[in-house]
Amino acid sequence: MSRVLTVGCAQLGPIQRRDTRVEVVQRLLALLHKAHARGCQLVVFPEMALTTFFPRWYMTDQAEIDSFFEDSMPNAATQILFDEAKRLGIGFYLGYSELATEGNRRMHYNSAILVDRRGKTVGKYRKIHLPGHAEHEPQRPFQHLEKRYYDVGDLGFPVWRAFDGVVGMCICNDRRWPETYRVMGLQGVELLMLGYNTPEFNAAIVEPAHHRMLHHFITMQAGAYQNGTWVVAAAKAGIEEGCMLIGGSCIIAPTGEIVAAANTLGDELLVHDVDLDATTPIKTSVFNFAKHRRPEHYKLIVERAGAVPPPE
Amino acid sequence: MSRVLTVGCAQLGPIQRRDTRVEVVQRLLALLHKAHARGCQLVVFPEMALTTFFPRWYMTDQAEIDSFFEDSMPNAATQILFDEAKRLGIGFYLGYSELATEGNRRMHYNSAILVDRRGKTVGKYRKIHLPGHAEHEPQRPFQHLEKRYYDVGDLGFPVWRAFDGVVGMCICNDRRWPETYRVMGLQGVELLMLGYNTPEFNAAIVEPAHHRMLHHFITMQAGAYQNGTWVVAAAKAGIEEGCMLIGGSCIIAPTGEIVAAANTLGDELLVHDVDLDATTPIKTSVFNFAKHRRPEHYKLIVERAGAVPPPE
Repeated sequence: MSRVLTVGCAQLGPIQRRDTRVEVVQRLLALLHKAHARGCQLVVFPEMALTTFFPRWYMTDQAEIDSFFEDSMPNAATQILFDEAKRLGIGFYLGYSELATEGNRRMHYNSAILVDRRGKTVGKYRKIHLPGHAEHEPQRPFQHLEKRYYDVGDLGFPVWRAFDGVVGMCICNDRRWPETYRVMGLQGVELLMLGYNTPEFNAAIVEPAHHRMLHHFITMQAGAYQNGTWVVAAAKAGIEEGCMLIGGSCIIAPTGEIVAAANTLGDELLVHDVDLDATTPIKTSVFNFAKHRRPEHYKLIVERAGAVPPPE
Repeated sequence: MSRVLTVGCAQLGPIQRRDTRVEVVQRLLALLHKAHARGCQLVVFPEMALTTFFPRWYMTDQAEIDSFFEDSMPNAATQILFDEAKRLGIGFYLGYSELATEGNRRMHYNSAILVDRRGKTVGKYRKIHLPGHAEHEPQRPFQHLEKRYYDVGDLGFPVWRAFDGVVGMCICNDRRWPETYRVMGLQGVELLMLGYNTPEFNAAIVEPAHHRMLHHFITMQAGAYQNGTWVVAAAKAGIEEGCMLIGGSCIIAPTGEIVAAANTLGDELLVHDVDLDATTPIKTSVFNFAKHRRPEHYKLIVERAGAVPPPE
């Protein structure tokens, strides 16, 4: 039985602060309808697909911060997206800021959910590798306060059986970390979905802007190949509140090849026929883990977080 | 104090079975002298730099197999290389097949040693990720019997303080595995040296030849960037006993950029000024491991060797 899944990668152009959820959802719906017209069974939307990338601002008013979060999903603004996707028989990945109440604690996560073609929520992922910083750094031209506004994800890197395959999720900075791919690779992931918001200018270090795109591609291409998995990556791109976010949305084959790529910084749909069986040759040869991996030599990976160079 | 090290990456063209060690060492010496003329303080030679890539043949006569191994290093054939490197003040990485006697067992390793500028052996590495297969597979046009002829390396992935920095080694197929880079990255590696012999035609699966070079580059570029380390990779290249080995020797910066690359399939020297302090920006920002890594979510990496997909 063929396991070819027609997947849409739905890049979004910028979302400004003044844009309402209702307006943004109309753009998601337009991309969903385009995906339907092109035969998609699954669409990947970006990280924080309902709001602007607010961690660029230092804020102290918790109500103001919370205004960028969703306390339920679906909710009044997004219900129409869920309903329409179900009607069209299209599953989707959607990134958003999640406000969760756990006991009497209010937790803030950078989350993504996966909904299947029948409208059922398959699973949720909460971002583990939060980038940036937790304190205001006024010398930066803009902030990257994800470590301030979000809690570290508490759900690990699960995979699910869905869409006739084994699928997983991560978000933005997670894609730079080989551990992200490997933990899912060890659970047989065949299709890894992710959204991102990546400022073109890296305020943390002096580096040319083109390195941002290089890093984006090489980490995902290596992660795809090294685990024999498809990777679908959807950007929020373009000039958002004066800050340029990279585009580069793409679909990467288990060979590491980029087989579809965005060429704009706006709302744009990529479509590719993703053959989940194309993961098999790599998973059973060069990356047959059972045959080749040597975990007894990998212990440092879990025994320490930080690097410890040998004594001088 | 500047930590700029002028590094030579010494690609070798093919070594045929009829070529003697003495003849091959003359080629290594020619590359060493060229490296000296260009100001190198360190030269990286390939994997199995003294013989042809013999795992392409199925052999049952242990004496014949052992004829490709060295039972001491340096030895009569290689002493001149060690002496000349010391005289010129050049350190080097050299890959060779090592026959070691441990108690009354004879062990076979795919090894590399690192020698410093004063002629002192800094350390040895024995290849952990042995590719290929252990049994004769007559349907293949050529064999890849590393799993038959070699024992799995028993020295882990150590790093050493040498050449004013923190240096590490791996060999060929090790470079495809993110664990290789990460284990050394967690020990602060700044310069990772490796040699390789990579057949252009992958007899294990059906794939176009250009994927071999893509995989070679993306895994090393990602490994360099994800750990903020220089990578120097030296091929044995060209048509060896009728089997094409890829070239693509290169030097990769901690940004993941390829800053020097071979353009032949023969003996060729690449030279680059490797600034070990250029590793710092990445190690202290995006890949500040202590700040960003979450080992509690990485446990599967050491808890299982093979992939275990979720139940159907």
